[in-house]
Amino acid sequence: MAVRKFSLISEIEARQIEPGSTVELEKGGHVTPLAADTLRERRVTVVPAGSVDATLPADLAPVADVRRIAIGADHTGVKLKAVLIDHLRKQGRAVSDLGTANDEPVDYPDIAGAVARAVARGEADAGIVIDGAGLGSTIAANKVRGVRAAMCSTPTLARYAREHNGANVLALGSTLLEVPAAIEIVDLWLSTPMREARYIRRLLKIRRLEERF
Amino acid sequence: MAVRKFSLISEIEARQIEPGSTVELEKGGHVTPLAADTLRERRVTVVPAGSVDATLPADLAPVADVRRIAIGADHTGVKLKAVLIDHLRKQGRAVSDLGTANDEPVDYPDIAGAVARAVARGEADAGIVIDGAGLGSTIAANKVRGVRAAMCSTPTLARYAREHNGANVLALGSTLLEVPAAIEIVDLWLSTPMREARYIRRLLKIRRLEERF
Repeated sequence: MAVRKFSLISEIEARQIEPGSTVELEKGGHVTPLAADTLRERRVTVVPAGSVDATLPADLAPVADVRRIAIGADHTGVKLKAVLIDHLRKQGRAVSDLGTANDEPVDYPDIAGAVARAVARGEADAGIVIDGAGLGSTIAANKVRGVRAAMCSTPTLARYAREHNGANVLALGSTLLEVPAAIEIVDLWLSTPMREARYIRRLLKIRRLEERF
Repeated sequence: MAVRKFSLISEIEARQIEPGSTVELEKGGHVTPLAADTLRERRVTVVPAGSVDATLPADLAPVADVRRIAIGADHTGVKLKAVLIDHLRKQGRAVSDLGTANDEPVDYPDIAGAVARAVARGEADAGIVIDGAGLGSTIAANKVRGVRAAMCSTPTLARYAREHNGANVLALGSTLLEVPAAIEIVDLWLSTPMREARYIRRLLKIRRLEERF
């Protein structure tokens, strides 16, 4: 699908752009304030001209506007999970809690695998997996085709994970993060879009690894 | 294969234990100092009685005595890679450098995929992959069956990655680590064995995810 390119987006243009789509703005181009509001409402992503590579599959970059989140934690992450679910629901997102519910030991690959499959099947726009360090859940979630999971212990990593690697699953270490830090990481991860074609193109090579090995 | 169990390992026993194998020591059991030297030479791993689950596949836990390492870095990690190769070779390990060689941009999935396949095929006992943050290489390497890749930004994570998750590929972020910290992480990761059956058992579930999704 060809990407529409604009030099000016006024309210009239904004109302004609398909909700949820991505459009390009020419260098020196302008979006009127009213149009900017409308674009936000319609969840339209505006990127610099030349950013979008029409030859790349449309489903390669992760969903930019995350509305439905699948979340899961092993026994070490139950408390952090509860805090995050509350936080995300207050932001108006739909959260599906895939367990576990108490501190009885469970195996992280079961939980991370369930969250990863929900994302891979398109039942969730993104996923969050929690275990003690976040490393095991990252390994397990990445074993599911279509999932790119990244363990982020800092906000900087959260931004990288999205911008550079299009991570659609975020892994957190419950024993390594205080609650406010975890919330900051989650919020930054959710609000960072993946925009640059040179990074998106690399995801094709990850897809090829999934298919071949 | 049944695991041999000892209450005392003296030099005589130590010389009869198969090199590279794992044996159990009874609670309150003892290893003589001379035997300890011999066991180290013969790369024998001594674990507490009951640690080894004979029903688990022998190739599930990562190689404890890492002699052959495959290493690769994208253009951001060439310098760190050179330092690590030198460090590892001085430790007497065989290191195969899978690129890249200069600062011309390459795609991290190509490099991480090559290192991961070397480990999966048994051409290397373990692998190290480097890119700017380490996140993308972790995703890519985990797409290869048999590989468990973990991005470790601290020594604590390096120990966890091995003890809990049996990571056979270590991912490092070149822009986030100073050289001495990277060396400390690599050394701790290489010298930490995976011993506990309850953790090893979880790797079976990761293998099942690889086979099914």
